[in-house]
Amino acid sequence: MTARSTFDMELEQLNLDLIKMGGMIEEAIAKSIRALEQSNTAIASEIIQSDHSVDDMEKQIEARCLRLLMRQQPVARDLRAISTALKMITDMERIGDHAADIAELTIRLDGNKPEAMAQHIPDMADIATQMVRACVQSFIENDLDLAKATIQRDDEVDDLFNVVRDELIKMLENGSDAETANQAIDLMMIAKYLERIGDHAVNICEWVVFYDTGLHKETQIL
Amino acid sequence: MTARSTFDMELEQLNLDLIKMGGMIEEAIAKSIRALEQSNTAIASEIIQSDHSVDDMEKQIEARCLRLLMRQQPVARDLRAISTALKMITDMERIGDHAADIAELTIRLDGNKPEAMAQHIPDMADIATQMVRACVQSFIENDLDLAKATIQRDDEVDDLFNVVRDELIKMLENGSDAETANQAIDLMMIAKYLERIGDHAVNICEWVVFYDTGLHKETQIL
Repeated sequence: MTARSTFDMELEQLNLDLIKMGGMIEEAIAKSIRALEQSNTAIASEIIQSDHSVDDMEKQIEARCLRLLMRQQPVARDLRAISTALKMITDMERIGDHAADIAELTIRLDGNKPEAMAQHIPDMADIATQMVRACVQSFIENDLDLAKATIQRDDEVDDLFNVVRDELIKMLENGSDAETANQAIDLMMIAKYLERIGDHAVNICEWVVFYDTGLHKETQIL
Repeated sequence: MTARSTFDMELEQLNLDLIKMGGMIEEAIAKSIRALEQSNTAIASEIIQSDHSVDDMEKQIEARCLRLLMRQQPVARDLRAISTALKMITDMERIGDHAADIAELTIRLDGNKPEAMAQHIPDMADIATQMVRACVQSFIENDLDLAKATIQRDDEVDDLFNVVRDELIKMLENGSDAETANQAIDLMMIAKYLERIGDHAVNICEWVVFYDTGLHKETQIL
């Protein structure tokens, strides 16, 4: 087998690993939202456990990227694929972390489903989940239009974050006891994690655009 | 000039850029803490403005890294330098973002210096600032011991985060009006940003260790 075809096989494997990692975080975030909405601490514990696999996957992909960069001088498109991977996995890993963060707070809320939950956190969660699904899909199918459309959706999550914040302030104003205060703070953190998940999905989409065009956030870098 | 010495000059320039970016975020975080503690909205506005320069610096370094990777097949140590840079700037840029996040909340708090501030947020801020300074220094001086010592300090920030959380819950329990609720939520976010700044400083230290040893979080990846 020539050096070149070994390189191509490794690149193909890199792509498969990324698709696998994408599937892992898509599942993690969907499950963490389900656990939160159903106050299901058993599912929440599972997510925390499986976050280690996401971390391992990141390390494995990272090592493969560095080996590929070292072994053979990559041409422009291959280099873009490898550097896209190196950057993208950081955002993927963070999404996995935030799914675990939400799961931890679900366990702390322990069956308490506060009133405010009925309002806009589920809406934020829906959009964040859709964005994660879309960013993974845009990468797999190299779908530039989907990537660009997903980047636009970030404002929706940011706007909802402010709505949730106002809801929680109201919840605290109406005479808060220790339990309400605890819940409000935890829900605020959950809203923050969802907002960050949206940001990371946007970053991933921006790497999908870069992979295709060499443009990152409208700057030509390769 | 030979291709090799051009490459070496570019590597040296990469190093200088990283030092410069390190200085920028060190200043941003120190200033954002000062603005917060002094309720100085003028300084806070400056920080938000200058975050654009940090973002530009990230793009510039990123472009240089990719050019270096493409132009010449790097040997192991050079490749480590370039991939360290590529990863490290993501964490540096996030620290800059969080300094701007804190500045934004300082403006929102607008001269109100809530009681809870007197307690443990300044302690968190001190440690986070020290960690950022240490991670930049460990990189510049290639000081592995300092990097490892700084990684250990993350627990201090995490512990203080929980202390601050408890303080804010107490603040909310003691009968909260709209203003108290708003302040508590904003301070909670500031504590979260400080905790994240600590995490990013740790990440940078882990890249410093990787640069020297090829080990990342105890896994040999290069």
